[in-house]
Amino acid sequence: MKEKVKAGIIGAAGYGGAQIARILLAHPDAELVFAGSRSNKGTPAADVYGNLRGRTQLLYVDDNMDGSEEAGKMLLELADSVDVIFTATPQGACAGMMSEALLERCRIIDLSADFRLKDVSVYEKWYKIEHKAPQYLAEAVYGLTEINREKIRDTRILANPGCYTTSSILACLPPVADGLIDTGTLVVDALSGVSGAGRGAKTANLYCEVNESAKAYGVTNHRHTPEIEEQLSYAKGAGTKPVTLTFTPHLVPMNRGILVTAYASLTEKALAADDPADLIRKSYEQHYGSEYFIRLLGEKGCPETRFVEGSNYVDIGFAVDKRCSRLIMMSALDNLMKGAASQAVQNMNVMFGLDEKAGIDFIPDAP
Amino acid sequence: MKEKVKAGIIGAAGYGGAQIARILLAHPDAELVFAGSRSNKGTPAADVYGNLRGRTQLLYVDDNMDGSEEAGKMLLELADSVDVIFTATPQGACAGMMSEALLERCRIIDLSADFRLKDVSVYEKWYKIEHKAPQYLAEAVYGLTEINREKIRDTRILANPGCYTTSSILACLPPVADGLIDTGTLVVDALSGVSGAGRGAKTANLYCEVNESAKAYGVTNHRHTPEIEEQLSYAKGAGTKPVTLTFTPHLVPMNRGILVTAYASLTEKALAADDPADLIRKSYEQHYGSEYFIRLLGEKGCPETRFVEGSNYVDIGFAVDKRCSRLIMMSALDNLMKGAASQAVQNMNVMFGLDEKAGIDFIPDAP
Amino acid sequence: MKEKVKAGIIGAAGYGGAQIARILLAHPDAELVFAGSRSNKGTPAADVYGNLRGRTQLLYVDDNMDGSEEAGKMLLELADSVDVIFTATPQGACAGMMSEALLERCRIIDLSADFRLKDVSVYEKWYKIEHKAPQYLAEAVYGLTEINREKIRDTRILANPGCYTTSSILACLPPVADGLIDTGTLVVDALSGVSGAGRGAKTANLYCEVNESAKAYGVTNHRHTPEIEEQLSYAKGAGTKPVTLTFTPHLVPMNRGILVTAYASLTEKALAADDPADLIRKSYEQHYGSEYFIRLLGEKGCPETRFVEGSNYVDIGFAVDKRCSRLIMMSALDNLMKGAASQAVQNMNVMFGLDEKAGIDFIPDAP
Amino acid sequence: MKEKVKAGIIGAAGYGGAQIARILLAHPDAELVFAGSRSNKGTPAADVYGNLRGRTQLLYVDDNMDGSEEAGKMLLELADSVDVIFTATPQGACAGMMSEALLERCRIIDLSADFRLKDVSVYEKWYKIEHKAPQYLAEAVYGLTEINREKIRDTRILANPGCYTTSSILACLPPVADGLIDTGTLVVDALSGVSGAGRGAKTANLYCEVNESAKAYGVTNHRHTPEIEEQLSYAKGAGTKPVTLTFTPHLVPMNRGILVTAYASLTEKALAADDPADLIRKSYEQHYGSEYFIRLLGEKGCPETRFVEGSNYVDIGFAVDKRCSRLIMMSALDNLMKGAASQAVQNMNVMFGLDEKAGIDFIPDAP
Repeated sequence: MKEKVKAGIIGAAGYGGAQIARILLAHPDAELVFAGSRSNKGTPAADVYGNLRGRTQLLYVDDNMDGSEEAGKMLLELADSVDVIFTATPQGACAGMMSEALLERCRIIDLSADFRLKDVSVYEKWYKIEHKAPQYLAEAVYGLTEINREKIRDTRILANPGCYTTSSILACLPPVADGLIDTGTLVVDALSGVSGAGRGAKTANLYCEVNESAKAYGVTNHRHTPEIEEQLSYAKGAGTKPVTLTFTPHLVPMNRGILVTAYASLTEKALAADDPADLIRKSYEQHYGSEYFIRLLGEKGCPETRFVEGSNYVDIGFAVDKRCSRLIMMSALDNLMKGAASQAVQNMNVMFGLDEKAGIDFIPDAP
Repeated sequence: MKEKVKAGIIGAAGYGGAQIARILLAHPDAELVFAGSRSNKGTPAADVYGNLRGRTQLLYVDDNMDGSEEAGKMLLELADSVDVIFTATPQGACAGMMSEALLERCRIIDLSADFRLKDVSVYEKWYKIEHKAPQYLAEAVYGLTEINREKIRDTRILANPGCYTTSSILACLPPVADGLIDTGTLVVDALSGVSGAGRGAKTANLYCEVNESAKAYGVTNHRHTPEIEEQLSYAKGAGTKPVTLTFTPHLVPMNRGILVTAYASLTEKALAADDPADLIRKSYEQHYGSEYFIRLLGEKGCPETRFVEGSNYVDIGFAVDKRCSRLIMMSALDNLMKGAASQAVQNMNVMFGLDEKAGIDFIPDAP
Repeated sequence: MKEKVKAGIIGAAGYGGAQIARILLAHPDAELVFAGSRSNKGTPAADVYGNLRGRTQLLYVDDNMDGSEEAGKMLLELADSVDVIFTATPQGACAGMMSEALLERCRIIDLSADFRLKDVSVYEKWYKIEHKAPQYLAEAVYGLTEINREKIRDTRILANPGCYTTSSILACLPPVADGLIDTGTLVVDALSGVSGAGRGAKTANLYCEVNESAKAYGVTNHRHTPEIEEQLSYAKGAGTKPVTLTFTPHLVPMNRGILVTAYASLTEKALAADDPADLIRKSYEQHYGSEYFIRLLGEKGCPETRFVEGSNYVDIGFAVDKRCSRLIMMSALDNLMKGAASQAVQNMNVMFGLDEKAGIDFIPDAP
Repeated sequence: MKEKVKAGIIGAAGYGGAQIARILLAHPDAELVFAGSRSNKGTPAADVYGNLRGRTQLLYVDDNMDGSEEAGKMLLELADSVDVIFTATPQGACAGMMSEALLERCRIIDLSADFRLKDVSVYEKWYKIEHKAPQYLAEAVYGLTEINREKIRDTRILANPGCYTTSSILACLPPVADGLIDTGTLVVDALSGVSGAGRGAKTANLYCEVNESAKAYGVTNHRHTPEIEEQLSYAKGAGTKPVTLTFTPHLVPMNRGILVTAYASLTEKALAADDPADLIRKSYEQHYGSEYFIRLLGEKGCPETRFVEGSNYVDIGFAVDKRCSRLIMMSALDNLMKGAASQAVQNMNVMFGLDEKAGIDFIPDAP
């Protein structure tokens, strides 16, 4: 019998960390060894997340990462106890704790943005904090599993993508890669459920402030923008200039879900086809046809977040607006799952040679 | 003492019609004489809409509009009893009942699309029904009050705009009119609450089908598209070609509200300015600065539907995405109010020489 | 022309205080002179409550009530500027600022519990704080307008009832007063929307903690319990012993609304009637038949919170469970309106000899 | 390797049936052979329930049960293909199709009420339809797994309990069985999410009719009442008279969840204890301490539906109201899971000798 992968979570009481915990507690080939939460240390996880009652006796451990010597020592002790640590922490925290001593002890799957962008100046511009460990940016692998599966296997540092990012990149990548849309015209409009805003006690996220309302936010300066741009720029067909796009997130009143609607003008190559829609369809099928967790809805197929909720699926559809020679790309995923926790575990599965679906093969349960 | 305007409603048991009834029941200068609902005829309105309890004894009257001789006679009798009829009816119904005999008796405020588009072939293409009264298209006035106030005063047929349309046009008009955006790049992305889908008993609109989910629908072919295009085409600065744009509506889980986020490239004229954002701001102020029901949030002001809910207000903001030389236009309104019922009453007020705010000067009541 | 009543609000940035502001800004016979919010002082009210944009230029003023000399002086200055102050403040604050000097300057409508209970020991037991001004308890009038209208006219201190309380008392009072139910068997089960929990930034009230869930809370020890008991004990027919009852509040995912379902065994007097339901119906009609803001739905009439939302109405229904010789009493109101702000203004109207409906005669606007 | 249990579903396109399908598609020891839906026959199940995309190619088959000869023949053919049929059908349908010929072919797990009540006259009184197969009532086993586990193993007809019923019975049974509460005073007040109302296209269940509102319904005559009464009457300690209780269901705006709050006076036996709460706690522990799917929250533990959503768990808490000598019993479950589909599969597991948790061991996934 194969030994289970031993895993720990730093930042386990946030919404993302709590989902990783939930998944690992039922994972056939992994074991949750520790769950860290400084503000809840000593408290049973099942007292904070009542859904975990009966499934774990774990108490939250202190996961102080204030950079002190003591914190560093504690971190290495935690690292000694596991094969992999998930960091579901605020920006800067994971970079601040990164070291060779840590990476000798375990591998890191970071759910923050610290290791997603290759260019440290871009990171520091958008996140407005100094990067504490830029020397590790080169080796970190961007964990969009379907795109980087091979590189993921052997990395020590896995940079798990953001929720808007996973949804946006997967929706746009095939037509970009195949030169079917003009990236200079790309606009990504996205809707998010409220869990994306985290579990912090902020007035803006109170039930009565969010319920029965919709709004855009972070217009022209949301931090996920450069991540989408960078990843699309890598695509063959993206052209020689880096992709620059407008990204507009919106908050809508639901717990979970990202819905992306992206717009771009079709290229002459696409418009020259007898049936541009058919060309687009084939592009998606060639890129994703064999991907288990990507479900293609085809032309005029409109994804709905309820049909991916609770799962690792991404649903993708598209439409050709002939009147305007424009392509509309649509995708839906669960921001806490494929947009965070279940993709992190998917990456863990790849990194440790497990079945990629192990522990995350949930069927969404609408309604 | 001035006599009150006598009003009737055909289609009074739908969500839009019911709002008109509610508004008229408290209107200082108007009186609700009849409320029609074929399927509820003989039932007290307050039995269907419990919110009206204590405010009206009206029973729904038969408002059959099947085109029969009997229906026609009944309609004229209803028309004889009022100064104005609001028709909150399915597409085709108002055109089907239009006649000189009717217009001699009362004025018509139609909340359907029957008289919104000037070109009958565009109507028939998008709505896929034959127009029964194209001879009245020329005289009908498009009732976006802030734009057509003068023409509205004397019209016999007021074509009350759609909810998506009011929000989209008002958001985009100033920069289009002032030649600040390239209409060939215009994309309108909109979110709607569920009441926009009406009160018909359809599985797709059940609570559990809509709640906790978001989706696009009507992609590339929603019927409000040509209405937005036509009105924007009238704007000075729109260019000589008719405006053609991509419009994508989305359904989000809330009762009320339209949120529009529109995108277009800035023109060279706009980009040549020292501060394009300042130019845009002035454009909005010049067009709307004196409008009571339009509230300008300025640059980076993001409207929220909760802050207009229950009112006749439209909140408008914008942002300039310098990296992409693109303008983002945003607006919010209540689809049942400024997007339907309260704008209809606003138009009635103008048509009958009343204070434009009479009966519709609600302050939104967040939360 | 009559001079307007000048009013100020202490605690104007909470949900209750903000509703009072909204109501007063459109009140025909009152004027909002100041709105206090210590944490928002100097900020335009319309920046915090975007719904008020275009309706007021008021900046929040400091309404410090820390008991210091300076605070006391500031309070008297505020009091000098108005006829009435609404205090929408945490428990203890209003009692802490009460004085003859204050009451010489203006009248007080307190939305906290400080002056609701006549017995200071009951207050101190349930609220677990010392009462700072027990000498004013005797003269304070409990502001359930429909019950105490006459006493309200002349009071200096109006103790505005709680939301659960108004709903519970009005539902149960007629059968208690007429000796039709055994108060020893009384159970009040109530549901509340989330705005009742206030606008404080607490994790427990975040959207994702509350949405898609229901729970009881404060079981056996909710502070509104003694208020309901005391008021019902005053009723003729309540018997000679003070009423003692079980009260269980629940939180359900909606912005507004209280729904009360109360249970009690019918007395022999009620059971002796040919038709106990008819007796119950008459009891409600005798008590409330002439009340404008109470709407009686009769036997088997089930109130729905959506039909009172945004209004000062209370809807009341009942059912007789013959199999169990038990009465079920039901009521619905809007917790921020009849349960707080609009009842406070209703009381102000009575206190200042205005039309009782002035400024609060809203028709609920479902959906 | 053991052969999988072959299962079919009649009424597979309703919310309950669809959950059974979802569960069986991932069940390690069972196989979904057919899914019936007359109105969707020939349509892929994944077209109606988009969440099932990628998980099944099944087309809905005709499951006509109109009593015709042809329907009867078709039913037997379906029965020949499986070991068990789940019937998630309207009242009367399962009784109408019951026969020896059917039971020779497969076992039946009925999610309707047809075989839940032993007394046919009680069934016909509350459901107002004639029972077509009363001869099978005696052998049918009431499938509250935790109560009737032993009888369930060998039954041919499993009467799967209702959602309100499972929650109510499990909350009340221990104190009833141990003689700690007076059943004559029992009141069960319950809240339900909207999925309990089914997927039928009814105006009353539209999003805008249900959202932002709460109401009681079926007051004094809800059909689950006699089911709760009958099962509690079987309990030792219930006394010699059948239990009669008041049951009041409420609709609250959430997709899933039942929350029960039940009230009863403590008996002298309970009040005589030094600490009645301790006695109650022990009663729950003795009855449920070893049950995997029942989680006891103890005194003052208030269940929340979010913490059981998506799972087969029932969370139970209680409180003693000393002032009133009354016990408050609380429970929460997911109406589509333990209240319908997952309990049905739990019963299937017992009936076929599988691990009772197989395929239904979901951890709830709050938020």
